[in-house]
Amino acid sequence: MRIAIPLFDRFTALDAVGPYEVLKFLPEAEIVFVAAESGPVRDVPTWLAITADATFNDVGSCDVLLVPGGPGSRALLGDDQLLAWIRRMHQESTWTTSVCTGSLLLAAAGLLTGLSATTHWAAVDVLESFGATYTPDRVVFQGKIVTAAGVSSGIDMALELAARIADQTTAEAIQLAIEYDPQPPFDAGSLAKAPQPAKDLLSKGLRRFERTQ
Amino acid sequence: MRIAIPLFDRFTALDAVGPYEVLKFLPEAEIVFVAAESGPVRDVPTWLAITADATFNDVGSCDVLLVPGGPGSRALLGDDQLLAWIRRMHQESTWTTSVCTGSLLLAAAGLLTGLSATTHWAAVDVLESFGATYTPDRVVFQGKIVTAAGVSSGIDMALELAARIADQTTAEAIQLAIEYDPQPPFDAGSLAKAPQPAKDLLSKGLRRFERTQ
Repeated sequence: MRIAIPLFDRFTALDAVGPYEVLKFLPEAEIVFVAAESGPVRDVPTWLAITADATFNDVGSCDVLLVPGGPGSRALLGDDQLLAWIRRMHQESTWTTSVCTGSLLLAAAGLLTGLSATTHWAAVDVLESFGATYTPDRVVFQGKIVTAAGVSSGIDMALELAARIADQTTAEAIQLAIEYDPQPPFDAGSLAKAPQPAKDLLSKGLRRFERTQ
Repeated sequence: MRIAIPLFDRFTALDAVGPYEVLKFLPEAEIVFVAAESGPVRDVPTWLAITADATFNDVGSCDVLLVPGGPGSRALLGDDQLLAWIRRMHQESTWTTSVCTGSLLLAAAGLLTGLSATTHWAAVDVLESFGATYTPDRVVFQGKIVTAAGVSSGIDMALELAARIADQTTAEAIQLAIEYDPQPPFDAGSLAKAPQPAKDLLSKGLRRFERTQ
């Protein structure tokens, strides 16, 4: 079972690595990071690079497509090479998935038109501009297309995928392997829950490399 | 504020990337991945590589040391170069931290003797063999030393660290930025919670690259 994860300049590493760390335990999985060119691909703010071991030309099909997001996704909404590759992967995939603003790329490829989907909360307008209907759920299944919300949500999505690809006991074993018993010290992980001062601080921009998604 | 994350062959990517994705938002943070040699460092099962941009010789001190774990950590419990570097970082650090079996490396460096600490649940015996007392908490603070449990726990640790380094509102803003509102589909993330069939499956080894941590 080939799982392909495309990378691009200014991607968000946790979008990719969260579900990677779950799906790699699936008994039949083989995971490949893919990019326009092979070699290291940098995130924002360029402190982290993951190596793409294959190019888009190398990967003609996959069973699971997992598209991460990141600030760089918006620059690729008209990138014919990437969008055509996404459409090609989707033709034969068992699952076509995204994390965070990765769903903008699925949408730009035309895959989400008329469907419910999710994305990072700060990217709702862009998602809907492509004809998808935003749903503020953490993980949204629409047939074989699965979209997850911002950044960390990919872990939850991948566990549900693992259960559907293998079975619930396998997914639970993976959850135990990565000791995923989340205990966030604060309860600010969604727009509905975050205190106003945190929202105000974030909207001003925590860092020079904002916008963050 | 320099944050140094050492990498080594057969590390676990989420151990490093989870807290990285939180701490990178801290206004003063600069994060560097470090290894014995610069260049890509492979995880298990070699499908993922993160680039080390500096060598241990390049980094003479840091404010925050964050040591990830992974199956490769056990091969380094007698590695003089790495352990000496960890001790050197600890001398001037504000925070010395670990995720998963990264705590075995802190312990082997002599930093946890007589302290309470945590690690991946499958590595308790090794941790205690170095004179630490295992505590099944997700995050354990002992002065400036902070250890986190298996793999995904680094996200929780990093949010708490962010609050202490900056303030709670900043940590909450980061939590919102990464939309960390965890909703695992199953409740199997600790030994106390996982159903017996999942434990049995994991103990048999899900994949050829087990042991997993």
